[in-house]
Amino acid sequence: MSATPAGIIFDAYGTLFDVDSVTERLEGFFPGKGTALSQRWRQKQIDYALLRTLSQRYADFWDVTGDSLEYACEFEGVALTPQARQTLLDDYERLPTHREVPAALAALRDKGVGLAVLSNANSHMLKKALAAAGIEAHFAHVLSVETVRKFKTAPETYELGTQAFGAAARDLVFVSSNGWDVAGATWFGFRTFWVNRKGAPRERLGVAPSGEGRSLDDLAAFAGA
Amino acid sequence: MSATPAGIIFDAYGTLFDVDSVTERLEGFFPGKGTALSQRWRQKQIDYALLRTLSQRYADFWDVTGDSLEYACEFEGVALTPQARQTLLDDYERLPTHREVPAALAALRDKGVGLAVLSNANSHMLKKALAAAGIEAHFAHVLSVETVRKFKTAPETYELGTQAFGAAARDLVFVSSNGWDVAGATWFGFRTFWVNRKGAPRERLGVAPSGEGRSLDDLAAFAGA
Repeated sequence: MSATPAGIIFDAYGTLFDVDSVTERLEGFFPGKGTALSQRWRQKQIDYALLRTLSQRYADFWDVTGDSLEYACEFEGVALTPQARQTLLDDYERLPTHREVPAALAALRDKGVGLAVLSNANSHMLKKALAAAGIEAHFAHVLSVETVRKFKTAPETYELGTQAFGAAARDLVFVSSNGWDVAGATWFGFRTFWVNRKGAPRERLGVAPSGEGRSLDDLAAFAGA
Repeated sequence: MSATPAGIIFDAYGTLFDVDSVTERLEGFFPGKGTALSQRWRQKQIDYALLRTLSQRYADFWDVTGDSLEYACEFEGVALTPQARQTLLDDYERLPTHREVPAALAALRDKGVGLAVLSNANSHMLKKALAAAGIEAHFAHVLSVETVRKFKTAPETYELGTQAFGAAARDLVFVSSNGWDVAGATWFGFRTFWVNRKGAPRERLGVAPSGEGRSLDDLAAFAGA
């Protein structure tokens, strides 16, 4: 049994929020292409965040999200109207959480564990999405990479977590559904928990998460909370 | 008509070498999965290079290539035997060039333009592949990112080009088939030429290549050579 962590830090998109939920809306606008568009949009959003950081060309995540949607639509050969673009980006500000998330967060908080969210999103879109989902009050810290103008997995972004809790990385747990994010956080020194919601292969990056589960329901036992 | 550049720098994989040529071999080992495996292998190879650089965890590109192949196979649910792994990686050391490449390089060299190749590959695999394709003699400089232990699009990698030619970035032309590489090179300050072999959409990264064509046959006119 592990020591109770000084805090638990959650990634937002994919981990708390169900980014695949936009598939249905995309399918409504572009029949037969919803899944392909959703997957390409998400992949491109991550790629653009990595590239911009590596080349020192930070841009607001809201713009990156719109840019990657436009690329995905052109790639799949569908015409994105201004109205569809707006509707899809509005959806991104009120994504539903994965089913178990509210109760799992409430249970951890009730046990006295400090919780934080650390996201590539700007703080405006992050707070709006947390409030829309009704989970904002669970978090002692809402951390956006906008303050360091780099996206994950730049070490400076993970430092926002150690700074917020005033704790060493090894005494904190970082939770993400994104394999690349878990790898970055493990490299940084956090204890990490991979919410492997889709049963994906482990990333071959020479580093393994400290723990793994299929949903946040598996987190409490791992975290010793 | 543009001024003749002080040199032309080529990306290797996708630009000179046909990385899609491994699809046939993959299809032979894993019928019905060749295209999906080839695409995921390549995407993962690029992702891992970006992530490792952003997190300051450089690894040899040969290992990154093997790691990404393993991920792709597990993702697609096929069992990669040690023999198949070896055969596929051996293929990567003797990839065929795209059809027009040898003649286009020879024509540029005959006009007195200095040519370089700048690749994420280690210099051993890069030189082996250039020699196997019979195009090594065209290049005044064979540049591997292994000397800076970062992958593209880190600015330090593109600096290898300016250093080799002793010229300013704006006086050099950088040529790549990879949209992300063209964006990074344009941000760095090179004149850039995107060999858009597949008619892909432009990347939405707030920067445009200086020129674009479908093969290296379109490069000479752009470069003023």
